[in-house]
Amino acid sequence: MTRPGEFELIERFTRPFTPGEGVEVGIGDDAAVLRPPAGHDLLATVDALVEGVHFTRSFTPEEIGWKSLAVNISDLAAMGARPLWALVALATPPSARPGWLARIGRGIASCAERHGVSVVGGNVTAASELSIAVTLLGAVRRGRALLRTGGQPGDLLLVSGTLGDAALGIRPGAPASLRARQRRPVPRLELGWAAAGIASAAIDLSDGLLQDLGHLCEASGTGAHVDAGCLPLSAAYRAQTQGRRDPLAEALSGGEDYELLLSVAPSRLARLRAAARRVGTPLTVVGVLVPPPGIRLLRDGRLLRPRRTGHDHLRSARILGRRGGRA
Amino acid sequence: MTRPGEFELIERFTRPFTPGEGVEVGIGDDAAVLRPPAGHDLLATVDALVEGVHFTRSFTPEEIGWKSLAVNISDLAAMGARPLWALVALATPPSARPGWLARIGRGIASCAERHGVSVVGGNVTAASELSIAVTLLGAVRRGRALLRTGGQPGDLLLVSGTLGDAALGIRPGAPASLRARQRRPVPRLELGWAAAGIASAAIDLSDGLLQDLGHLCEASGTGAHVDAGCLPLSAAYRAQTQGRRDPLAEALSGGEDYELLLSVAPSRLARLRAAARRVGTPLTVVGVLVPPPGIRLLRDGRLLRPRRTGHDHLRSARILGRRGGRA
Repeated sequence: MTRPGEFELIERFTRPFTPGEGVEVGIGDDAAVLRPPAGHDLLATVDALVEGVHFTRSFTPEEIGWKSLAVNISDLAAMGARPLWALVALATPPSARPGWLARIGRGIASCAERHGVSVVGGNVTAASELSIAVTLLGAVRRGRALLRTGGQPGDLLLVSGTLGDAALGIRPGAPASLRARQRRPVPRLELGWAAAGIASAAIDLSDGLLQDLGHLCEASGTGAHVDAGCLPLSAAYRAQTQGRRDPLAEALSGGEDYELLLSVAPSRLARLRAAARRVGTPLTVVGVLVPPPGIRLLRDGRLLRPRRTGHDHLRSARILGRRGGRA
Repeated sequence: MTRPGEFELIERFTRPFTPGEGVEVGIGDDAAVLRPPAGHDLLATVDALVEGVHFTRSFTPEEIGWKSLAVNISDLAAMGARPLWALVALATPPSARPGWLARIGRGIASCAERHGVSVVGGNVTAASELSIAVTLLGAVRRGRALLRTGGQPGDLLLVSGTLGDAALGIRPGAPASLRARQRRPVPRLELGWAAAGIASAAIDLSDGLLQDLGHLCEASGTGAHVDAGCLPLSAAYRAQTQGRRDPLAEALSGGEDYELLLSVAPSRLARLRAAARRVGTPLTVVGVLVPPPGIRLLRDGRLLRPRRTGHDHLRSARILGRRGGRA
C-alpha cells in the first residue's frame, strides 16, 4: 500500500514526540486516551501562531516549534497549573520540505520535554501559509486554579521579569538577548505554581501590559493605576530606547513578553515575594488595583489615560500585510 | 478603554456558546477549568478545516462551523466516547465581516448543542485564508475506549450508512442529499456508544474506506479483504455514478463520509447488529480481516490490489491549487 505525502509528513513531524505520564493511547488513534490525575481540575487552552503574523521565515523552524508550545504553557503558568498534554494542528504549504517541518516538530518536542509535556495528538493539513495551533491540557489541584477574576481594589500589581523586550526583539538588528525573548520565550511556570494560593488574580502578558491588565481588570471588576516609573526594564531595552520620544511604548504595549501579571492583597505581598524568590523569579510592583472604571498611568507626576493599550494581531496584520512582520 | 477589532470579533464569534456540564471556568480566562467525570478516561482530538482544501466559499458560514466540529465528534464516535468540551482556533483574513464570522460561530454552536458539547475556549488570529482548528475533549468509562488496535484476523468488517456520498456531494450540481453529506455530516455517535464493548476495533471514515481501513489494519497488525460487491451505496450515489468506468471510486476512496468502520469477532456479530438496530443505524458487512500484509479487493470474482487508496489532503491541494476544491 502506498503511503501518501500526508502520512509520511505526519510521521516525520511526530517522530520526536515520546508518550508520557497519564497517556493510555497517544498519537495514532482517532483520539488520545488520557488519565488525568485524581483530585485535580483539568485545564485546557489553545493558541495559534501564523506565519507573517506571529513569526516570519527569519525564525528557525526550531524557534517556531518552541514558541508555538511555549505561548500555551504561559497560559497554564498564569493559572498556576501543571501542563501535561499537547495536541498540534499544523497547516503547511504543500511545498514545505518534510525536513524543515520535522525541525518544527523537534522545536515543539524540545519545549515539551523541558516543561514535562507530552504531545498526544495532532493534525496536518495543506494551507497557503504555515500555521500551528497548539492545544494544551494541564491539571491543578481541584478548585485551586489562579483566575483573572479575583482581583480587589487595593491589591498590588506585580510583573515578573522585564517588559517590552520581545517587542523590541522582532526588529532587524536587535541584540541577541532581545531576539531570544521574541523567539524563544520561557514561560513562568514555577512562578505560577508558587503564586497559586497567594496571588488574588493572574494573567500572562501576551498582548502587552496595558491590554492584558485591561482583561484582568474587566474580569475582576476593577480599575488600575500603573506607575510608569516602576516598570522593570532590561539593560538592553534601556539601551535600545534611549533618546526615543516614548521610551516606554514597548514596555506598556508591546506584546509577547510572556511574563506574568499578578495581583495580591497587600497583607500577602511578603509571602508572594518570598515564594517568587524561592523559584528565582524577579517580581516588581508596578501599580495597584482601584475601583472601576479604567486604567490610569502615573507618569511624570500626572495620572494619564493611556492612548494605545496594546497589540492587536488582527489590526497589525491588516496594516502590515501578510508578510509584513508585527507592530 | 478602546476594545480593538480582535476582541470585538472574539465577542461576536463566541456569543452563541453557552457553558455546560463540568465547566468550572469557560471562555474568558487564560485557560478553561474543567471537571472530567469520575471513573472515566479523558479523550482528546484535533482536526482543522482550511478554506479551499476542506471547504469553499460556496459553503454557508453555518455549514463551515457545523462541519468543523462534526468531524471531531466523529473521531470521538469512533472511540465510543461522549464528547464534552471544544476549543476553537479560528484564523481569518482581517477583511472577513464580523457578521459572517458570527454565523460560523452559530454553526459551531448548533452542532455543539445537538451533540451535548460546550465550547470552552478559543483563539482568533489573522491569516490570509480562513481556517478552523477544533480540539474536542470527551470521556469514556475507564479502559473502555474503542481503539484501532483490537482487530484480529477473522473479524468481520462493517460500515455504517452509505459510502462515497460526501465525495460526490462536493461536485457542482450534486443533488441535495449528497451535498448535505458533504456540508453537514452527522457523526455516528450513538453507534459508537452502542459498539463499545462489542466491536474489536473502530475508525471513522474521513479519508476514504481503503485508506482508513489501511490505518485500522496497520494498528491491528492485520490485512483485509473487502468485497466490492457489498459496499452500501445510496440511491443518489448509484444514479450519479451509473455508466461510469469506475462507479465505485468514491465509495472506496472518497473522503469525508464520517461513517464508522468497525471490526467484530463473528461470534459477536449478532450482538453488534442488535445494538446498531437499537440506535437506528444501518450496518453492512463489507469484508473481513485477514493475516497481514495488505488490503485486497474482491471484485468480479478476483482478488485485486487496490490502485488508489484514498484521499490525501496535501496531495489534492498540491494538484488543485489553493481554491481548487477537492479530489
